[in-house]
Amino acid sequence: MRSIVPFAATEPKSRLDSVLTTDERAAFARVMLRSVLSTLRDAGHKPTVLATAPLDETTLPAETPVVVDDQPLTAAVNDQLAAAESPTLIVMADLPLATPDTIGRLTAASDDAGDDADIAIAPGLGGGTNALVVRDPAFRVDYHGASYLDHRAAAVDCGATVQTVDSRQLATDIDEPSDFAEVLIHGDGAARVWLDDAGFELDTSGGRVGVRRR
Amino acid sequence: MRSIVPFAATEPKSRLDSVLTTDERAAFARVMLRSVLSTLRDAGHKPTVLATAPLDETTLPAETPVVVDDQPLTAAVNDQLAAAESPTLIVMADLPLATPDTIGRLTAASDDAGDDADIAIAPGLGGGTNALVVRDPAFRVDYHGASYLDHRAAAVDCGATVQTVDSRQLATDIDEPSDFAEVLIHGDGAARVWLDDAGFELDTSGGRVGVRRR
Repeated sequence: MRSIVPFAATEPKSRLDSVLTTDERAAFARVMLRSVLSTLRDAGHKPTVLATAPLDETTLPAETPVVVDDQPLTAAVNDQLAAAESPTLIVMADLPLATPDTIGRLTAASDDAGDDADIAIAPGLGGGTNALVVRDPAFRVDYHGASYLDHRAAAVDCGATVQTVDSRQLATDIDEPSDFAEVLIHGDGAARVWLDDAGFELDTSGGRVGVRRR
Repeated sequence: MRSIVPFAATEPKSRLDSVLTTDERAAFARVMLRSVLSTLRDAGHKPTVLATAPLDETTLPAETPVVVDDQPLTAAVNDQLAAAESPTLIVMADLPLATPDTIGRLTAASDDAGDDADIAIAPGLGGGTNALVVRDPAFRVDYHGASYLDHRAAAVDCGATVQTVDSRQLATDIDEPSDFAEVLIHGDGAARVWLDDAGFELDTSGGRVGVRRR
């Protein structure tokens, strides 16, 4: 199965601008990207980075292909789907809690008849699509808005079977400062270390546990 | 396996007070409670409600035992654990996305040796403990703060094996207005119907999908 990790190479993670500088956001985004690439390799995949601009490939795991496409996310992914001859796994680059096991649950998701689901979706919190397996050649993505619902509807329009994967780890994309709490609670990899080093720590003073920066 | 659903019978869901009246919060909390009770029964359990005050039992599924204990959550649950002779499953009452399958994944969670985990935890977003299986008679809960981390540490202190279950559906406790989005996106039961009837709908105008009330 081909696997693709889209990556916004310039000005990533703008919704973290209240707590991280531009350089910090760029650095943290790359730490998360490497984490996702390592997870996919540990799950037996050979991921390609689909980047909006050239990347310093020395910062990536060895032999990681990078395809540069400066189109918006949806168009760039759909061009990849149109060119693909095999099932395609698309995993967002901001999922530092993803593990090989959770990726395996996604790629093994089956329909009601027990066959591989044509479309398997791991939704993000707030209705996004954090990870997706596409086995139907007619299916195209649209990442705008509540894309999880749109992708389910698009699968039905294609006559494709669709399965939703119940994973907190794949649901937790790191977009906003409050999401850091999930990395500090559950993470044990490079993204966790980066946040620790940057001075973030859990704040248990409120209702739901948050974060503060030392 | 004994199963318990703690329920704050008076003034529940205070963090929803910006969008729901007191009566609405009481009604919505009871809709979610019934949803969790039905899910547990569909998963083969016979749940007992552990309520802080007497409930109108006609609003519960038939033959649902109610134990009234006005102590704080942690003390009430620990008294139940101290009295239990069998494994105990504790599921919070605000998990309308829980399904029999996700409950089954929790109760089937195994340790590294393939045996039933002594402690199996489904963490909530923000580090809470949304659902818990306790097979170690020495284990006690402490629901304050980032209880997921505390419960893992307590399990280690007991010499108990511990397993974390990766479930978005069990992680999604409905505490704050933004959590309604998850019910509107993924829910298909009574809690979803209640929110629809109360005029809540998805708001896709921001970064992460939220809700607005008509």
